[in-house]
Amino acid sequence: MDEKSFLKRLLQELGVEDNDVVYLNGVVLKIDGSAASTSKLPFQTWSDFGWRNVAAALSDLRVKYAEPRHLVASVTAPSLDIASQVIEGVREASRRFSVAYVGGDLNQGGDVVVDVAVVGIPRRRLGRVPQPGNLLITIPEFGYTAIAYRFWHSDHPAARKGVEILRRPAPDWPLPPADCVTASMDSSDGLADVLWTMAQDVDIVIKELPTTEEVREFAAAHDLSIEELVFNGGEEFLPVFAVEPQCRVEPPYVAFAYVTEGSGRVWWRGELLRWRGWSYFRST
Amino acid sequence: MDEKSFLKRLLQELGVEDNDVVYLNGVVLKIDGSAASTSKLPFQTWSDFGWRNVAAALSDLRVKYAEPRHLVASVTAPSLDIASQVIEGVREASRRFSVAYVGGDLNQGGDVVVDVAVVGIPRRRLGRVPQPGNLLITIPEFGYTAIAYRFWHSDHPAARKGVEILRRPAPDWPLPPADCVTASMDSSDGLADVLWTMAQDVDIVIKELPTTEEVREFAAAHDLSIEELVFNGGEEFLPVFAVEPQCRVEPPYVAFAYVTEGSGRVWWRGELLRWRGWSYFRST
Repeated sequence: MDEKSFLKRLLQELGVEDNDVVYLNGVVLKIDGSAASTSKLPFQTWSDFGWRNVAAALSDLRVKYAEPRHLVASVTAPSLDIASQVIEGVREASRRFSVAYVGGDLNQGGDVVVDVAVVGIPRRRLGRVPQPGNLLITIPEFGYTAIAYRFWHSDHPAARKGVEILRRPAPDWPLPPADCVTASMDSSDGLADVLWTMAQDVDIVIKELPTTEEVREFAAAHDLSIEELVFNGGEEFLPVFAVEPQCRVEPPYVAFAYVTEGSGRVWWRGELLRWRGWSYFRST
Repeated sequence: MDEKSFLKRLLQELGVEDNDVVYLNGVVLKIDGSAASTSKLPFQTWSDFGWRNVAAALSDLRVKYAEPRHLVASVTAPSLDIASQVIEGVREASRRFSVAYVGGDLNQGGDVVVDVAVVGIPRRRLGRVPQPGNLLITIPEFGYTAIAYRFWHSDHPAARKGVEILRRPAPDWPLPPADCVTASMDSSDGLADVLWTMAQDVDIVIKELPTTEEVREFAAAHDLSIEELVFNGGEEFLPVFAVEPQCRVEPPYVAFAYVTEGSGRVWWRGELLRWRGWSYFRST
């Protein structure tokens, strides 16, 4: 059992919808966090790490068309110096994304852990599971973070762009017309994870890789699998929306997959998508 | 600078009230957590540790007369086995205190950290600072946890009671009439911390130690300072309410201190209270 299947079972037992945010009476609630020992990247500062955890939580609200209003952050760190740098990043991200940072908790511990809780106003209720006939649309910028994980020390523009996304993710993409959208998720654990999660009681057929020519060229020049980069990255904080087929897809969005009747499979070039994205505790 | 002064300065900079909960539009929000490496006690199971963090958050809501409705928990742990035991404690406490546990986050990390966010409905708005002339009332059960920290292996009823409070704190005390109360805090970092925090622009004069004959006898038999036990314990999750002097104080509450005009001092037997309660990062 890994993180994803454990959480899925837990939510079933609790009788709670498996979704990226929790819908309460008139408000939406999200808690999201990570530990530095497993999630902080070598090129991230402590402030970057604080920023990243705010961005991760806000990305989940944005992809659900919920307006973030208030944010509290609980920071655990071995020293006050590190905690204060993390908190500076939380403040910077809160300012940047116009959410009121209204307090939190501060604890001493052996790892650096940031947990961010955000309360927002839902515009509508939106789940994760699309309907047969829907198109899946996204912003075709996958691959940069996967490049940066390995090539963060490189001067190549694709690596530099990936590093910048990972240091200061900015989930402030435009939203498609709300009445077109039937389901949504953002990519934090990789596009493959998004697709396998959305494919519940439906199948998803991928038509094309949502990426750029720059990423393709980087992959070719470095003998990397372009599919590995696109499907198995993570931390892109790019949205995937399921939309009605008659809706117009406007830039920066492209339609890259479609939804059919099915039983929870994801198809790429006639075969099951073999990437799964990222999950904690996979080997336990 | 320690945890408390750092948080105080941060909240000032953010322009946010220094209080135990955050009042938003029609809801109240609290995030509270701790790390096992600094806060888990040797006799606590992982489930106890999960329970304790829920109780800590709920205690803050209760002392502010806010009704907890929904809870999300973010758990960081090195293994899924530990995480699942922590989460079991979160579930048990949520059931026990009638709050809906509606999800959360799960992360792998080097320490075990539980952060609990609770959304509730405020009945009124209540701060921390009392008015001159107020009485301070509490439930006179301080001392047990301080005994248990040192004597948790003992069979003495006082030690056993302290261990039980620390393993499964139950902040479900009755509430005094709401219109009598002008300010409140619960004791998580010790009674001394509560009193020094409440004494802002007022002085607090302690008349008697809010404890039991059993604790007094334990202290005498073991040559312990009764004041140390009462003021410098922590994790009691007992409430302290400031009430108007004409209000009747009914059991289980006793009046143990009063508030005067002043400048932020706490008095005990004609001298400044020398205990300060507990704070992280005190030596940094």
